[in-house]
Amino acid sequence: MVKGPRFLKGHGTENDFVIIPDPDGALELTPAQVARICDRRAGIGADGVLRVVRTAAAPEVAALSAEAEWFMDYRNADGSVAEMCGNGVRVFGRYLVDSGLATPGTFHIATRAGLRGVTVPAQGDVTVGMGRAALPGPDGIEVAVGSRRWPAVNVNMGNPHAVAFVEDLAHAGDLFTAPAVTPASAYPTGVNVEFVVDRGPRHVALRVHERGSGETRSCGTGACAVMVAAARREGADPAVTGTAVTYTVDVPGGRLVITEHPDGSLDMTGPAVILAEGELDAVWAEG
Amino acid sequence: MVKGPRFLKGHGTENDFVIIPDPDGALELTPAQVARICDRRAGIGADGVLRVVRTAAAPEVAALSAEAEWFMDYRNADGSVAEMCGNGVRVFGRYLVDSGLATPGTFHIATRAGLRGVTVPAQGDVTVGMGRAALPGPDGIEVAVGSRRWPAVNVNMGNPHAVAFVEDLAHAGDLFTAPAVTPASAYPTGVNVEFVVDRGPRHVALRVHERGSGETRSCGTGACAVMVAAARREGADPAVTGTAVTYTVDVPGGRLVITEHPDGSLDMTGPAVILAEGELDAVWAEG
Repeated sequence: MVKGPRFLKGHGTENDFVIIPDPDGALELTPAQVARICDRRAGIGADGVLRVVRTAAAPEVAALSAEAEWFMDYRNADGSVAEMCGNGVRVFGRYLVDSGLATPGTFHIATRAGLRGVTVPAQGDVTVGMGRAALPGPDGIEVAVGSRRWPAVNVNMGNPHAVAFVEDLAHAGDLFTAPAVTPASAYPTGVNVEFVVDRGPRHVALRVHERGSGETRSCGTGACAVMVAAARREGADPAVTGTAVTYTVDVPGGRLVITEHPDGSLDMTGPAVILAEGELDAVWAEG
Repeated sequence: MVKGPRFLKGHGTENDFVIIPDPDGALELTPAQVARICDRRAGIGADGVLRVVRTAAAPEVAALSAEAEWFMDYRNADGSVAEMCGNGVRVFGRYLVDSGLATPGTFHIATRAGLRGVTVPAQGDVTVGMGRAALPGPDGIEVAVGSRRWPAVNVNMGNPHAVAFVEDLAHAGDLFTAPAVTPASAYPTGVNVEFVVDRGPRHVALRVHERGSGETRSCGTGACAVMVAAARREGADPAVTGTAVTYTVDVPGGRLVITEHPDGSLDMTGPAVILAEGELDAVWAEG
């Protein structure tokens, strides 16, 4: 049999990844290989590939090597290069600690979007810094599914979100197609749409339609956007009060806990599981 | 990290399987574990699990141990027990030869549906015996999608099929829901529906809606049903002429070659690929 490199499969709230350790940056990982590996029937199947490279060995981020020993080279399932993924960073951090490449605790990971701080205990949930949210408006945004319409909040997490509070998550429908968002001028590059219901005090649940992907099991930036929109809805703003606010955000694939700090920074805590490991075989080498 | 048993992932025309070697029948493989392993995001992801057990060590098939050294314990993705799967048997045979548990050539595999003969060369496509087809009628069966209707042939391969020759595979629509088949009395336990177009001399292509599963990438019994319906359509019947007939049948996940012999037996030849292997981790042990 043809033998390829070692791999692991992991997931964070069912956002799933194939991890490929490549400490010295010696592997050529082509878009076609990534697409084959992520194919859910002819490959392992995943939302993306996380190549694990020593930052000093990765020219595009080598300047970050003093602050982060490891670079998360994230590729989308179609083989294209991606900048960042909050669920991916948690799984990446869990792998580093489980494999002995990092000591349990708080450290930085290099990504194409810059440094990301993570806190990885010896066991249990992993926390990742998600940056800050902006709420640029305008007022009057609406999300529609079928004959129902809801007001929505524009939250920008580096990517654009429309957050709509609804009575019942089933009202979002099958989400095979993108919900209608108006005015279109609010989102010139498209938008991720979150539907949110209350579950209890500072506890909400969401469904999400990701731009270009359809409904997904989890979206880290979407969960953060929802947390901030929910906090503002109840009048809570840590930048004003000087007191951090924490929400529990249930996504279809699990539960996230998100804290907004007085400096506006967001931390997201959630599960990160390594579920299998092995060696790639024909999927690595064939055609 | 928790370590579970060894596994491999393989596919035959994109019908994909997690293989778990358990020669002595020592593993307890619960329905919940199978469902977790087959989950496409929180697990490895597969259409089913193939546990590899020495026939003499499997009480339910031990009577077959003189003819078949190995038993394919096939489980559906939901954890339920299944009898047989033609694409699964090819992958199972490929695993036995690649791992040295069987010698390249022709041998039997024990299944819950009895013995299945396979021919596994050292490399390349694998052939599996698929039994015989029956064409019980009645005349007048029709398959409908939207406003289009086609006559269909009832072919029974142990499971029921309605085979409709169409002008364009796109006319089958999105196949999210089961096509309408009339009269309902022809199929009291439901039916698998194949849509077929001609690709050339004794070369057809199909799409299939599998009872209970929706559209799939491949269906071994469906491909055999289509081959027999196509042969009868051109007036070819090996039982009458004494001459075997061979068709190439393209399925969405690849290409199968199917031969009907004068005794009515069908052989199906196609790819069987082992694409990765390793050890199950959290997916084996967790809750």
